[in-house]
Amino acid sequence: MASQQEIADFIAREFPQTRVKILEVGGMHATVAHEVGVDELRPGGTVSGPVMMATADVALYVAILGEIGIVPLTVTTSLSFNFMRKPSADRRIVGVCKLLKLGRTLAVGEVSLYSEGQPEMVAHAVGTYAIPPKR
Amino acid sequence: MASQQEIADFIAREFPQTRVKILEVGGMHATVAHEVGVDELRPGGTVSGPVMMATADVALYVAILGEIGIVPLTVTTSLSFNFMRKPSADRRIVGVCKLLKLGRTLAVGEVSLYSEGQPEMVAHAVGTYAIPPKR
Amino acid sequence: MASQQEIADFIAREFPQTRVKILEVGGMHATVAHEVGVDELRPGGTVSGPVMMATADVALYVAILGEIGIVPLTVTTSLSFNFMRKPSADRRIVGVCKLLKLGRTLAVGEVSLYSEGQPEMVAHAVGTYAIPPKR
Amino acid sequence: MASQQEIADFIAREFPQTRVKILEVGGMHATVAHEVGVDELRPGGTVSGPVMMATADVALYVAILGEIGIVPLTVTTSLSFNFMRKPSADRRIVGVCKLLKLGRTLAVGEVSLYSEGQPEMVAHAVGTYAIPPKR
Repeated sequence: MASQQEIADFIAREFPQTRVKILEVGGMHATVAHEVGVDELRPGGTVSGPVMMATADVALYVAILGEIGIVPLTVTTSLSFNFMRKPSADRRIVGVCKLLKLGRTLAVGEVSLYSEGQPEMVAHAVGTYAIPPKR
Repeated sequence: MASQQEIADFIAREFPQTRVKILEVGGMHATVAHEVGVDELRPGGTVSGPVMMATADVALYVAILGEIGIVPLTVTTSLSFNFMRKPSADRRIVGVCKLLKLGRTLAVGEVSLYSEGQPEMVAHAVGTYAIPPKR
Repeated sequence: MASQQEIADFIAREFPQTRVKILEVGGMHATVAHEVGVDELRPGGTVSGPVMMATADVALYVAILGEIGIVPLTVTTSLSFNFMRKPSADRRIVGVCKLLKLGRTLAVGEVSLYSEGQPEMVAHAVGTYAIPPKR
Repeated sequence: MASQQEIADFIAREFPQTRVKILEVGGMHATVAHEVGVDELRPGGTVSGPVMMATADVALYVAILGEIGIVPLTVTTSLSFNFMRKPSADRRIVGVCKLLKLGRTLAVGEVSLYSEGQPEMVAHAVGTYAIPPKR
């Protein structure tokens, strides 16, 4: 297992350009937030799809690292998204991940995505990660 | 229908920060390429997942606009990805989209993603877009 | 809205061969159970994938009918599954559906699938349904 | 590698209730057909979703066995479907599978589903299978 601080340090070191922050991690869960600024918006005043996708990907990664420790070679094998509502242009995107399975070689989790502070889910994701055999 | 130049102009105006270029569009197909530089890499010398996701999303959007014309409110409703091989760090990501269905209100397409110039698919995506009723 | 009895009558009349029973419906949720007998098993003493897929599909359909009433032309547009653990050969498959979005023309929901009476999810599904415009 | 006859014998022995027949297998591809009779129909004169899902699942399984030989413990880990057109009630469902990746432990493939003899795809599937480590 890795602590929130250890994961945050690892992410900051390895993905220096990321705009995602860890809010909480542990117990097969993680909550992260993606900053939203000019670069994250698309016309019509909404957040771009890839921003939501990146948020879900990081939420899953952080939830898994919270359980198995810092295993950098853990990689996404599949991700599926449903986009349901238009996110707010002036709020961070928050991703709440819950791991559904943590096996020896495969982890599966779902992520609910929100505009921060708003009750309705804007998108939903399910992802699988391959965990390298030796750890 | 919109021409490649019309779609390129629309994308450049509305998504000024995009790093995706249109290589070809028409006949229910589109091919696009995403630049790969420092911002697109992740540790281990590979291209980040969100870059591939953005490429697939744009490829689908361009293929649809190529058929229905410039309809900005066409939005992604679902996207699913399988990541299969590690992309090269020094080649653009190319997305080749083929529309499987173009209905009045829903379009479905698949995208094969490659490291430019290499034969093996690095990832595969399937997406659905909602087309606004009046057009 | 349709009551559990109305939906059960509709399903029995229209899908006489189904082996799925409704256990509960309402409040954007539905719980259903699929009988498991010789026809539902595959070698190795486990439940076949299509049985789990059918359970998820019905759970979503029932949850939607519980909200919008008996609208037979509501059809599945996409379904995605992750299979996580081997189900028991001697227990029904239970599907617990939660609708994530119920729009005018599109509904999205997720389904958790269990071997009845066991705590660990055997599979997880996410599906979208198109609701016909006039209802 | 396994021949078409070997796979057909294996399927007949292990899944005696299946209504899917192998039409062709080899070269990272497989084509299969699912019989359509009273049990496979749903009201409105169309083929039920689970029939199409079973066809896709078998098509993927057969394509993989065609490459790696009879490895019964190869199991589906994920499957995603897009349903695009109403299939004919009086034609078999044909599934044409193409493997996109065949790794040591994971295979990925896509399946195009048709009403036999008709040109337009009725549904599309993408699936992943876990291959047991020792083979």
